[in-house]
Amino acid sequence: MTEYKILPTIQSPADVKKLSLAALETLCAEMRQAILEKVSNRGGHLGPNLGIIEIATALHYVFNSPEDKIVWDVSHQCYAHKMLTGRAFGFIDESRWGEISGFTAPKESPHDMFTVGHTSTSVSLACGLAKARDMQGGKEYVVAVIGDGSLSGGEAFEGLDNAGALGSKMLIVVNDNEMSIARNFGGLYGNLAELRRTNGTAACNYFKALGLEYKYVENGNNLAEVIEALKEVKDCARPVVLHVHTLKGKGYAPAETDKEAFHWSMPFEIASGKLKPFTAAETYVSVVSDYLMRRAAVDDKLAVINAATPGALNLKEFRGRYPEKYFDVGIAEEHATAFASALAKGGMKPVALFFGGFIQRAYDQIMQDLCLDKNPAVFVVENGGISGADVTHTAVQDIPMLSHIPNLVYLAPASKAELLRMLDWALAQSDFPVVIQTSCRQPAVLKYEPRAEIELHKSEVLHKGSRIALLGLGGFLELAEQTADEFAKQGYDVTVVNPRFADALDEALLEDLRRDHDTVITLEDGNLDGGFGEKVARFYGDKPVRVFCFGARKEYTDRVSAEELYQRYELTPSQIVSRIL
Amino acid sequence: MTEYKILPTIQSPADVKKLSLAALETLCAEMRQAILEKVSNRGGHLGPNLGIIEIATALHYVFNSPEDKIVWDVSHQCYAHKMLTGRAFGFIDESRWGEISGFTAPKESPHDMFTVGHTSTSVSLACGLAKARDMQGGKEYVVAVIGDGSLSGGEAFEGLDNAGALGSKMLIVVNDNEMSIARNFGGLYGNLAELRRTNGTAACNYFKALGLEYKYVENGNNLAEVIEALKEVKDCARPVVLHVHTLKGKGYAPAETDKEAFHWSMPFEIASGKLKPFTAAETYVSVVSDYLMRRAAVDDKLAVINAATPGALNLKEFRGRYPEKYFDVGIAEEHATAFASALAKGGMKPVALFFGGFIQRAYDQIMQDLCLDKNPAVFVVENGGISGADVTHTAVQDIPMLSHIPNLVYLAPASKAELLRMLDWALAQSDFPVVIQTSCRQPAVLKYEPRAEIELHKSEVLHKGSRIALLGLGGFLELAEQTADEFAKQGYDVTVVNPRFADALDEALLEDLRRDHDTVITLEDGNLDGGFGEKVARFYGDKPVRVFCFGARKEYTDRVSAEELYQRYELTPSQIVSRIL
Repeated sequence: MTEYKILPTIQSPADVKKLSLAALETLCAEMRQAILEKVSNRGGHLGPNLGIIEIATALHYVFNSPEDKIVWDVSHQCYAHKMLTGRAFGFIDESRWGEISGFTAPKESPHDMFTVGHTSTSVSLACGLAKARDMQGGKEYVVAVIGDGSLSGGEAFEGLDNAGALGSKMLIVVNDNEMSIARNFGGLYGNLAELRRTNGTAACNYFKALGLEYKYVENGNNLAEVIEALKEVKDCARPVVLHVHTLKGKGYAPAETDKEAFHWSMPFEIASGKLKPFTAAETYVSVVSDYLMRRAAVDDKLAVINAATPGALNLKEFRGRYPEKYFDVGIAEEHATAFASALAKGGMKPVALFFGGFIQRAYDQIMQDLCLDKNPAVFVVENGGISGADVTHTAVQDIPMLSHIPNLVYLAPASKAELLRMLDWALAQSDFPVVIQTSCRQPAVLKYEPRAEIELHKSEVLHKGSRIALLGLGGFLELAEQTADEFAKQGYDVTVVNPRFADALDEALLEDLRRDHDTVITLEDGNLDGGFGEKVARFYGDKPVRVFCFGARKEYTDRVSAEELYQRYELTPSQIVSRIL
Repeated sequence: MTEYKILPTIQSPADVKKLSLAALETLCAEMRQAILEKVSNRGGHLGPNLGIIEIATALHYVFNSPEDKIVWDVSHQCYAHKMLTGRAFGFIDESRWGEISGFTAPKESPHDMFTVGHTSTSVSLACGLAKARDMQGGKEYVVAVIGDGSLSGGEAFEGLDNAGALGSKMLIVVNDNEMSIARNFGGLYGNLAELRRTNGTAACNYFKALGLEYKYVENGNNLAEVIEALKEVKDCARPVVLHVHTLKGKGYAPAETDKEAFHWSMPFEIASGKLKPFTAAETYVSVVSDYLMRRAAVDDKLAVINAATPGALNLKEFRGRYPEKYFDVGIAEEHATAFASALAKGGMKPVALFFGGFIQRAYDQIMQDLCLDKNPAVFVVENGGISGADVTHTAVQDIPMLSHIPNLVYLAPASKAELLRMLDWALAQSDFPVVIQTSCRQPAVLKYEPRAEIELHKSEVLHKGSRIALLGLGGFLELAEQTADEFAKQGYDVTVVNPRFADALDEALLEDLRRDHDTVITLEDGNLDGGFGEKVARFYGDKPVRVFCFGARKEYTDRVSAEELYQRYELTPSQIVSRIL
């Protein structure tokens, strides 16, 4: 491990303010090294954090956090901020790497205003803090940091537009690293390029058009220049944008070169920039992207849409091979949804891909722009269900959120083989919009081979027993089978059903089960409140059938492992059996 | 009734194209008269429709709908479009007024591309149609119409930003009537004003900043000028914005003068512009706004937020009296939510008001920006539940949508008296965000007087009977009481409970009910799927209690009266009793 000289002495921003410029630059270099070492070993957001080090340092040098309030957008850029606010240990002490999350978190520090993991939020949030200050006669500074592609999200625009009209004193730092997660997409980025080209003097200026004051900083990785600029604008009476040009991946050559690959990286060798070996089990993500590759070769109507996540969704090969069928709309899930709906209306076969937890950014568009007219777009939501993700990135709410929307058919595949059939089925029909939600669980271990063809709102019975029936939705079909084995040990021959659909019940089957079952157990990889099991409980509510629902509790969890959550929610076969018997 | 000469002869846009300019102008005048007569008698959107008549006429003169595709945003501006596409009868034949809805609807006509009632959607949708055309080698024109305040919505920005980058040939008509529903809010509107002042020549141009071509039309109510401009830009190879300046309320003096009041109006006398007399029963909307007026006088911390609906939410008096506590953010629900969350974080007591069905535009912000950090903002959602509204304006999904979000406390008041207590309670605490959902039902008829104080997740037992318990949520507590009366006629003394909270159950009470009840009936004014009743059904799933859930079916309904829906969903006391017994 590197020996750090200055970084370990930084207990709070007060320690930053004492340093000379030369010492501050050493501090920046040490933070760069610390980020590189931690991320190369554990994985994480690399490029965004390397690029914003000087901005973070200058902010804490010029302002007095937490009295002055700094709101971080796309808070995966907050590593330097964390190190400067008493949390350097989480980066330089290997034994404490796990203590600090990758996003701002008020529970970690009063220097973090909000828990932020989705993007495009900081300007709206800063507007609220600024107005609360004004209404209470406060004098503190309020700063929003935004950038790294998140300007393309509608909420960011709404915030800027309102900041311009609100007129409250506030500073908006736009970190322009010329990149989103992938390359930037959107006409706006042409204007940012024009502003960079003209050193901020172009007359046509997106920020000024929204009524904001504006200043440009060309060398955003030059600490002195950023400090100078902050001092210059900080007392501006009106909301002001400081547009700072930085280099994503700054200081680490492989990340400067391949900005997209190093936006977020798995562990890698620092010397070569090559990923460390890992067991690359097949994932649902790759099953879907491979399917789309095969299909694009034979289906003229296919169009693939995603919102700034081609890497995580394994779509880079598709993008290279079929650029005319590929649409990365940037961080703009609302547009992605309406766009997909209209492509379907126009006769195409759009497949829009999202990560679980992010499709919720388009709830209104799913309900109004897509499902009202039943336009047959297909949405694939990846990595759903219980996981050890950061609190902002969990996705246990997708079943409750989507399954009450009329006209939306919601499929939960239980294995790779079934997912492929479902994709075929969804794309073969043109009667309704379809969501297919894949699980975080590995398809490699899910051996289920569907026998029955996919048929709307029909379940498949895997095994017919008696007395007790297990309904295992999607990735939890495996759990149902394991639980059936556990019951078998106790002498019970239980029925196992794959419900397949989460939006409606196979009522004929449920009715039929009553003949020789008195207990029905539902298993779902998601929030019980508003979920699938409750539909079953309502169906049997007035009938002499006991219903037990198993799934996730309604709560936010932050980096709690899936295994621990399975225990907490009594989702192991033995726990299930012992609760029933 | 007026005698119309040309309008009755218009069966399709082909009939429009045959007319001379003079005849077209007569046609516009006749449409203006027809709109005025229908809306003054039945109520509806007046100002937006009067202002856009020439644009609609010019579009159908220049383009060939439905081969060419015109997508209407804020489709409450579509009355002239409807008259020009074979639906004039719905405006000039009093007996057929009811046949035509106030929004675009594909089920009414192939000239309507999408069912649109929420706003800010047309550009994204048009992008999809344009790209579908390009990918299939089509040649048709694609036009998006946007304006009347909807540019402030994030989805509109995402659409424009993507249109600019996509580069597909398409026309975006911006109807700039200088107004939103109320006055425009947002820095952007300063830029529109600058563009108007400079006849479109200002160098700083929001649309150009997003990479779009641009042309300005000063006299958007001059038909010849609009036709000329459309012809000029329609073959532009890149996406082009035609910024058309119109007068909201054009041609009807009272609406030109008071643009806000006549955005949507109840029936009025044409001669005077005065509203026709109607029985002004007290509504929950006025109960809330009166409460806020009283509270503002004594509470320094209060801040009131809404998204462009001060008229419908009865906030105009508040706006006039407490301008410093009043924030109309424009059509920007995402910003409204984040802004309210941050005001709460900053120590204020924000109350954000929405209409049911529109709060869903901020689902992600509620989950991520508000509830994750438990910032104690109060959200009031008005006019929830089953109603005869247009399909785009129903609000039966709010309980399922909101009640599965962790940390969010969801209150459903059963009467005015309870609503006032709930407002006090929500504003007195600072532990969690609260949603209070009021009902479309009239508070005047809901006589319930709460006895027990509001206590987190505690229900109130109104009457203790035995065997059967009725849980009547919110506005449906009245139905529970009526149903209890109906049961009494059959000799049953049933228990009546006011659950108060929709986000969690009073488990102690439910457990207690088991001692002397074998049947529990839930009544909720919303979608059963994912709703309150299903929570109860799950709770009792493994216990020997029968649960019957009553509420709305998962479906879109379009102007089906509440009475008819109550029948359809078996929500009358006698239907309920007969299903149980």
